Formats: sequence, C-alpha cells, structure tokens
Amino acid sequence: MAPFKTLEDFAALLAQGPGPDTEARAAAEARNGQLTKPPGALGQLEELAIWAAGWQKTEKPHCDAPQIIIFAGNHGVAAKGVSAFPPEVTHQMVANFEHGGAAINQLAKTFGASMKVVPLDLDTPTGDFTEEPAMDEAACVAALAAGWEAVDPAADFLVVGEMGIGNTTSAAAIATALYGGDWVGRGTGVDDDGLARKQAAVDVGVARHTPCAPLDVLARLGGRELAGMAGAIAAARAHSIPVILDGFICTAAAAPLAVCQSDALDHVVAGHLSEEGGHGRLLAQLGKDPLLSFGLRLGEGSGAALAIGVMKGALACHSGMATFAEAGVSDG
Amino acid sequence: MAPFKTLEDFAALLAQGPGPDTEARAAAEARNGQLTKPPGALGQLEELAIWAAGWQKTEKPHCDAPQIIIFAGNHGVAAKGVSAFPPEVTHQMVANFEHGGAAINQLAKTFGASMKVVPLDLDTPTGDFTEEPAMDEAACVAALAAGWEAVDPAADFLVVGEMGIGNTTSAAAIATALYGGDWVGRGTGVDDDGLARKQAAVDVGVARHTPCAPLDVLARLGGRELAGMAGAIAAARAHSIPVILDGFICTAAAAPLAVCQSDALDHVVAGHLSEEGGHGRLLAQLGKDPLLSFGLRLGEGSGAALAIGVMKGALACHSGMATFAEAGVSDG
Repeated sequence: MAPFKTLEDFAALLAQGPGPDTEARAAAEARNGQLTKPPGALGQLEELAIWAAGWQKTEKPHCDAPQIIIFAGNHGVAAKGVSAFPPEVTHQMVANFEHGGAAINQLAKTFGASMKVVPLDLDTPTGDFTEEPAMDEAACVAALAAGWEAVDPAADFLVVGEMGIGNTTSAAAIATALYGGDWVGRGTGVDDDGLARKQAAVDVGVARHTPCAPLDVLARLGGRELAGMAGAIAAARAHSIPVILDGFICTAAAAPLAVCQSDALDHVVAGHLSEEGGHGRLLAQLGKDPLLSFGLRLGEGSGAALAIGVMKGALACHSGMATFAEAGVSDG
Repeated sequence: MAPFKTLEDFAALLAQGPGPDTEARAAAEARNGQLTKPPGALGQLEELAIWAAGWQKTEKPHCDAPQIIIFAGNHGVAAKGVSAFPPEVTHQMVANFEHGGAAINQLAKTFGASMKVVPLDLDTPTGDFTEEPAMDEAACVAALAAGWEAVDPAADFLVVGEMGIGNTTSAAAIATALYGGDWVGRGTGVDDDGLARKQAAVDVGVARHTPCAPLDVLARLGGRELAGMAGAIAAARAHSIPVILDGFICTAAAAPLAVCQSDALDHVVAGHLSEEGGHGRLLAQLGKDPLLSFGLRLGEGSGAALAIGVMKGALACHSGMATFAEAGVSDG
C-alpha cells in the first residue's frame, strides 16, 4: 500500500526522502582509486558508479535486476486534435507491449530488465484540461499510488516510461506551468495545424489552472500515466533504487517533484536526450545531463532503457575490476 | 592464413574490399518503415540498423556474437620517457586481461562478447622511431597478419582494442604524418615534462620517416598492436563483420587504411569519443561521429565495448519489433 492518501501526504513524503548512504559512497570512491586503470580513465563511468553506490547503499553497486514500468493513460485533451495518432492507439500499443512487439520489449530483453505494463483507466480519459482539471485530487492520488505500488522493491534500477496519445501536450502544459516559456513540440509527428492546436490547448489550460502548487500542476494538467511515473520515482527513493529518466514526458512527470522538494530527484539520472521539443531545456531546469543522445522521440521508456546498457557497463567495471594489488600491476 | 605477404598486397586487398549488400540494406529500410513506432522515432538507432543490415547482408541484423580482440605491443620510443607508466605494465595488464580483472573483461561479460588477447612479441619492443623505423615491412606485415587471423569469421560485430605503454605517442606520430598539425595528448596521464618529451619524439620521428605511403606510416611510426588492429579491421570487411572503433590509438591505427583507400572504413562506426588529445579531430578526418561520449581515456577497447550495448539495443529494436500489421496498431 502506498503510504499517502492526499497530495499533502505525498509532498510530506518527498520532504522526508532518504539521502544517499555517505559511507557506501566513500567506500566506492576509495575502491575506484585502486582499480587497474589510470586515475580518471573511465571518465563519467566512475562518477556513475560512485553515485549508484550511495543510492544502493553498497560499495559495489550493480544493475543486474533493472525494472521497466510502462504506464499508459488516455487524455481528454486528445479530443482537441493535438496528436497525429487517434486515442485508440494507446490501447493498441498496450496490447503490443503485452505481446512483446514494441521497441521497449526488445530493449528490456536485451538488457535483462523485467517489464511491467500498467494501463490506468484507459476507457475513462482524464478531463480535457482546456475545460476542466485533468484529474481531481483523488484521481491523481490514485495514479500516484498505482505508480508507487508498481515498483518492485527487489529491483536494483528503475526505468519508467509511458504511452498515452496526447501526453506531450500534457507534458508541455506542466513545463509551462512550472517554468513559464514555450514547451510545445511535435510529439509523435503532428503537422503545423496540429501544432497550433496543441499550443492553443496549452495556453488555455495553463491560464485556466495556474498558478497552483506543483503537485496540483501534475493533477490539473497531467495525466494518469504521468502521475504513475511520479509515484514510481518517489517509491524508488524509499526503496534505495536509483532511477533513469526517459524523455520529455517522463521528465515533465518528474519535474513537479523537484519543484515541490529540491532534492527529490537526487537519486535520478537522465538517460537520453529526446528530440522532442524542449527536453534538453527541461533537463537543464532539473540540473541533469543526459547520458545518451540518439535523437529518439518514442517514449515507452526507450531512451532510458538504452541507458541501462551504459549503467550495466559502468557498474560492472567498478564492481568487477581487479585492484592494482590484486592484479600485481604497477600503479605508475 | 592472411591473404597478403607484403604491404603492397595488403593495399591491393583494401582496394578490393567488398561493399555493403544493397538489397539487404533496402529490405531493412523497408522493414524500418513498417515497425510499430512513429516514422523516425528511434532516431539514430534506425540508421545504425540499416547500416548494419548492409554490412551483415541481412534484413534483420544482430549483435549476438560480438568479438573483442585486444592487441598488446611494446614500443622502443617508451625509452624516451613518454609515458606515466613503465613498459612492464604492458605485460602486467596482459596478465590482468587473461585473469579477467581489467575494465574490458567486465564490459565483455556484460555484453556477452567473446574476448581474445593477442600479445605481439612483448619481449622485443619495436624500434625507437626517433632513431629507426618502429617496424620494417616484414614486422608490420606479420602484425597485420596476426590481426587478420585473430578475427573469428563467425562473429557478428568486432571491437579492437589495445594495450602498449608508449602507444599514444605512436598514435600521435601517425596522425601527424597523415594529416599534419598537433596530435600529442597526455595519454595515461603524463606530466608537463613528459608531454614535452612526447612532442619532441613525435617531431623527430615524423621528420625522420615522412613523407611516405600511409601503410609505411603505420610501419615506421606505429607499433605491432596498431598494425594488429588495422589487420583485424580489414579482415572484418572480408568476413562481412561491422566494426566499432575505440579511442585515439585504435582510430590512429585505422586511419592509414582510409588514407590508402577512401572507403576502407565504411564498415566501421566510432564507438566513443575519448578524452585523449585530438580524438575528436581524428574522427572528423575520417567522417565518423562517435556514438558515445563519457570521457573515457583507457584504451583496451573499452569505449567501443560500451557501444556494443547501444548496438545490441538498436538491432534488437529493428529486428525484433512487430510491424503495424502484425500488431494490429493504427499507423496514424
């Protein structure tokens, strides 16, 4: 059971989020200095290993049991013609995930990740935020709780991804509400008219529902799959599981946590820089540098899943290499 | 047996290198358009899959049996004090590779790659190129042949890496001879005095041995492990095996092939941008964009091995995803 019943409870939980284990982190730092390589020669992989050691509370962190959770939701605002695809594609893609046919299934198999698909009330789209709040507090808390409960406490890394026709519009609305400025992009490939409808929807929604507290932004402008991701990211912190962020929508779902509590995403790295709209600027707002940049703009957790490979490599080097003493190698 | 006995034979082989299979490439391109994702949503992963399809001669390319070969050699020029580590470290690190303690062992295990270590006459360093050619033609041909023969024809991807105290000096000398300009960097972490000795050695060696043909550059200024990598890269082409380049030294070993025959590296991608000296500029000379950039400067094939993960992910998506028709998903 998720340990919150209101958005206020959830905010209080974020404020109590445990920090990294500084002893494990220091032990990992010491170990890193003794491995059979010139100092610093593994570059950013060394920093990743030391970061993961703190959050996993162990000198030798690992990425042997990563979990990928895909949340799906439908959006009232899709009725405003903001996507290149019809809403039934959310259903169809959930079936594709369940049958193993999507990109994320192949990536999960490649990197030995377990995969869970969590469809959230697909037959009841959220409210159209140009006319009413997308979710009331109870609906948002339920989606946060579904996310919290979907996390496997035995996982050693977490990737959260999403599917939801219309959800780049929600993500852009959240970013606009939190930071101001222009965040609307082409999503799955909307044309110029669609882009104009999207911008209009965001403008109307943000004007209607803000200013308000960051978790209210998530409720009023977000969607169930976005709140699911946010709940899962918060649960991972409670379970000492580091998280790899995916693209624009995933990052927009995480952003309210950081605005609510500035250290709420310290256990999170950015996996991949999406082609979508302002993803790079949104990551910069959160102080996150993406590990990869391959121009993906698919969602489904695909960019983050690709970064599991990097994480596995980084942690295998740190935790598996011999020390100079063990290998009988002169250290210069 | 390697199909060459002289550098002239080897150059002739490069000129006859087979091209990609254009039918397989076209089939992969068509398949890519039918997969359950918006067009282009997998970004650069799509290009990688289509490229690999051509070189592996199949609509559904794979990275299931990658091979990593680490060549090791010792360098006469190390006597000039160009490295932060003593030459016996080459021996010691070969033992570390053989016992599974190095970074590359962990990466090979992580990505299911077979690993071969090929020490090349470690007890007989090449000539000090500031005083004589590093290798005569026979020695260079022998090292190219050792590289050629080390490639497993059943592998589906190849990574070549190296170990050799002093070999960033050789690599810088090769790049200077081929392209002019300044290519000396800090290698494993040489101090300012060492850097000055390194630059002086490169200047003397290049002045003494050039101008000459690109394969003569490899012989006179290179080293056995560099020639081994060059031979393996050429063999991979003959066996329809695409190659992932590692860092500065690996790229410097490949460069003479491209100068000798402009399409000789078309079956090659750059895995990782090294922190070492002019690696980015050297890749630009070859028209290669690195897949990853994590600030590694270790050699051993480590940056390229990390990119195996990306390649596995890219090809798994392409070859394993359902088409719109198979999945019953509306394609917009």
